[in-house]
Amino acid sequence: MPTEPYRLTASQCLQAYNDGSLTVEEYATSILQRVNERQPTVKAWAHIEPTQVLEQARALDKVPKHQRGPLHGVGIAVKDVIYTKGMPTQHNSPIYANDQPEVDAGSIVLLRHAGALILGKTTTTEFAATVEGGPATNPHDSTRTPGGSSSGSGAVVADFQAPIALGTQTGGSVIRPGSFNGVYAMKPTWAAITREGQKIYSLILDTLGFYSRSVDDLKLLASVFGLKDDQPPTNHHDGVKGLKFALLRTMVWEKAGPGTQAAMKKGADILRAHGAEVTEIQFPSEFNKLPDWHSCVLKSDGRVAFRPEYQVAKDQLDKSLVEHVDEAHGYTRKDYLEAFDGISALRPKWDAIAAQYDAVIVPSVPDEAPEGIESTGSAVFNSMWTALHVPVINVPGFQGEHGMPIGLSLITARYHDQALLEVAKVVGKVWEEEGRWHSKL
Amino acid sequence: MPTEPYRLTASQCLQAYNDGSLTVEEYATSILQRVNERQPTVKAWAHIEPTQVLEQARALDKVPKHQRGPLHGVGIAVKDVIYTKGMPTQHNSPIYANDQPEVDAGSIVLLRHAGALILGKTTTTEFAATVEGGPATNPHDSTRTPGGSSSGSGAVVADFQAPIALGTQTGGSVIRPGSFNGVYAMKPTWAAITREGQKIYSLILDTLGFYSRSVDDLKLLASVFGLKDDQPPTNHHDGVKGLKFALLRTMVWEKAGPGTQAAMKKGADILRAHGAEVTEIQFPSEFNKLPDWHSCVLKSDGRVAFRPEYQVAKDQLDKSLVEHVDEAHGYTRKDYLEAFDGISALRPKWDAIAAQYDAVIVPSVPDEAPEGIESTGSAVFNSMWTALHVPVINVPGFQGEHGMPIGLSLITARYHDQALLEVAKVVGKVWEEEGRWHSKL
Repeated sequence: MPTEPYRLTASQCLQAYNDGSLTVEEYATSILQRVNERQPTVKAWAHIEPTQVLEQARALDKVPKHQRGPLHGVGIAVKDVIYTKGMPTQHNSPIYANDQPEVDAGSIVLLRHAGALILGKTTTTEFAATVEGGPATNPHDSTRTPGGSSSGSGAVVADFQAPIALGTQTGGSVIRPGSFNGVYAMKPTWAAITREGQKIYSLILDTLGFYSRSVDDLKLLASVFGLKDDQPPTNHHDGVKGLKFALLRTMVWEKAGPGTQAAMKKGADILRAHGAEVTEIQFPSEFNKLPDWHSCVLKSDGRVAFRPEYQVAKDQLDKSLVEHVDEAHGYTRKDYLEAFDGISALRPKWDAIAAQYDAVIVPSVPDEAPEGIESTGSAVFNSMWTALHVPVINVPGFQGEHGMPIGLSLITARYHDQALLEVAKVVGKVWEEEGRWHSKL
Repeated sequence: MPTEPYRLTASQCLQAYNDGSLTVEEYATSILQRVNERQPTVKAWAHIEPTQVLEQARALDKVPKHQRGPLHGVGIAVKDVIYTKGMPTQHNSPIYANDQPEVDAGSIVLLRHAGALILGKTTTTEFAATVEGGPATNPHDSTRTPGGSSSGSGAVVADFQAPIALGTQTGGSVIRPGSFNGVYAMKPTWAAITREGQKIYSLILDTLGFYSRSVDDLKLLASVFGLKDDQPPTNHHDGVKGLKFALLRTMVWEKAGPGTQAAMKKGADILRAHGAEVTEIQFPSEFNKLPDWHSCVLKSDGRVAFRPEYQVAKDQLDKSLVEHVDEAHGYTRKDYLEAFDGISALRPKWDAIAAQYDAVIVPSVPDEAPEGIESTGSAVFNSMWTALHVPVINVPGFQGEHGMPIGLSLITARYHDQALLEVAKVVGKVWEEEGRWHSKL
């Protein structure tokens, strides 16, 4: 082994199992040592039980080679709003403390069937629906937030405590932690993957997503979850040369700090230097209502989603969620329908714009992870894409004024997830090499 | 007591508890006797455990009067695709035989908090996603289907085995059993009620619904689940006089048999005779794609929904669901988006049409419940309304050539559920009185 097993990506791990240089038990032991060492600082796990992980690992080692699944023995961390048999699902809510519904989410059924080693549950903001952070910290600087709501999932992948992880996004909950932790993060097309067994905030917004330290690992997960384009890409790009990109600052560009401003410039420069075409574009003005419309849909759907908890234990519910149910936001049903229908009408229009490019480059975050872990930061650059249902991949490579990672998002039209992964592969290569940021972990 | 307790509606039941003439235990005992007598014929329960029901009933009797909820002691039957603590949830699938996730669906949390007596689980077609019937029979004629997929829920309410019940609708699964069993059935506005803990077929179509034998009971449930219009109706209609209705045969009128044809005519005649205005309208031609679009969305979403079960136990999955995952339907992602976006664009257009009337009257079913229990019948008159997200109430009162019940649907614009309930109240009164059909149960 060239390295400690815990440092392997999922794809490298599979290779090591395949050539017989590593057992799942050895791998699990290495991961657990890393977790043991880092959990007191990063606090990214809501639940991890070493005995249970090792038992799974030993069982996987006994599976004959020809019966092994595409994720055989690969450790994966699961955001604690996704049901897992044999482990609690607590939603970071006192109402569900130690609650353990004995049911697997659809995504977990697929992962287990693929042979994945389910490591444990990662911290989330309450119901993946608030911005109140804690206890997880950013592994690159524990005085800073790892982002949210998929706080723990982003952090453990960056920190080599798991090669891959599941998150969910309703605003910016997959992409923001991706950027803040300097890892790859993918939010696929809405409803392209089963969301069975995943706590609901907003039916029309919630999307399962995932984290990794390589695009190959994202592709592995995409395949296990059945993400497929109408015309799956048949050959890989050699590099970015000849690819067509759009650079879109969006209607909220005034929220971009110096780190993101520099990353957008540098990202475009690197691509151009490698022979790609990068054109600046702007949203047509009718897209300007997207941020408000997303907020209206989110809060109105929160009214419905949290009514059960509100009725049973209002005093144990975050104030912001109580306000959703109380309709403190002031949105009427009429406002909701205007937003819901308005967003719906924009989706095919965005797809037509995106179809002109191999990918559109947009900010992932306002800037590097802010100081403090009380707030998980802003979803201002993400929520519009969640509303439009399009695939988004955060690609790391850049850094902010304090040396913390910053990523940029690659975006395309709905159901072009596989094509976007191919573009992310070659873009990631040059941005990671030439974008200045490198993990010290 | 004027009657056997099991015959009471929910509202009558509450009245009897309130005036001290009935205890929950007495009520539960009466219901259980009825179930015991009728289950061998109607076969509507997938799970009902008398000891558990009586324990719940005794506990409810101990609740002090001032702490009682709005559904205190009211029995309710739950379709077996909705999670319930302490009871199995089996989806009529061998894959989930005896499976018992210890979690309550959001709707069940609200019902328990309101003091409802959760009786048990009612039969469904497999995952509420096929039309293959059995074992439940129609209580009015056991050689006929009770409809589906909420087969058991429709049947038990008609058969006085429960006053109210939960169902779900993705095509016509709430409204069809309502019509076939001669009871009230309501499919509220999509996403207006929590769908947490309810098996997913299609995120954009699945809707929780409910059954009762009176509109007052539907109103009780609507209140518990938090259904609310922007302008809740402040006073009740005295009768149908002066109300404005549209009569819409829809683009699939050629599917209507003599029973439904006669019901549509008679329904309009009765309303006119009582001083209502009934205008015949037609769908604008752009609505004609709705049935195909619904089918495309349904089958494409089925591809995603059943992938986990397909991977794990394909051989135990209904052929139609295997075909969804295999994409035997031939729909591309492009077709899906055309359908998804096309339906989205029609929703506000339908709302504008509906806003001109107090309600629009449309068929609930092609005709009375067909012979045989192998197939649960056709959703052809329902799927368009599920796709448009609008509230629908099946009102009973009419009958077919064999004396089986036929209902008609009242429909309006999204988020006018409370207003529609007020209209259903007065329409139901005259249709039930003058529509010729009366239950012999």
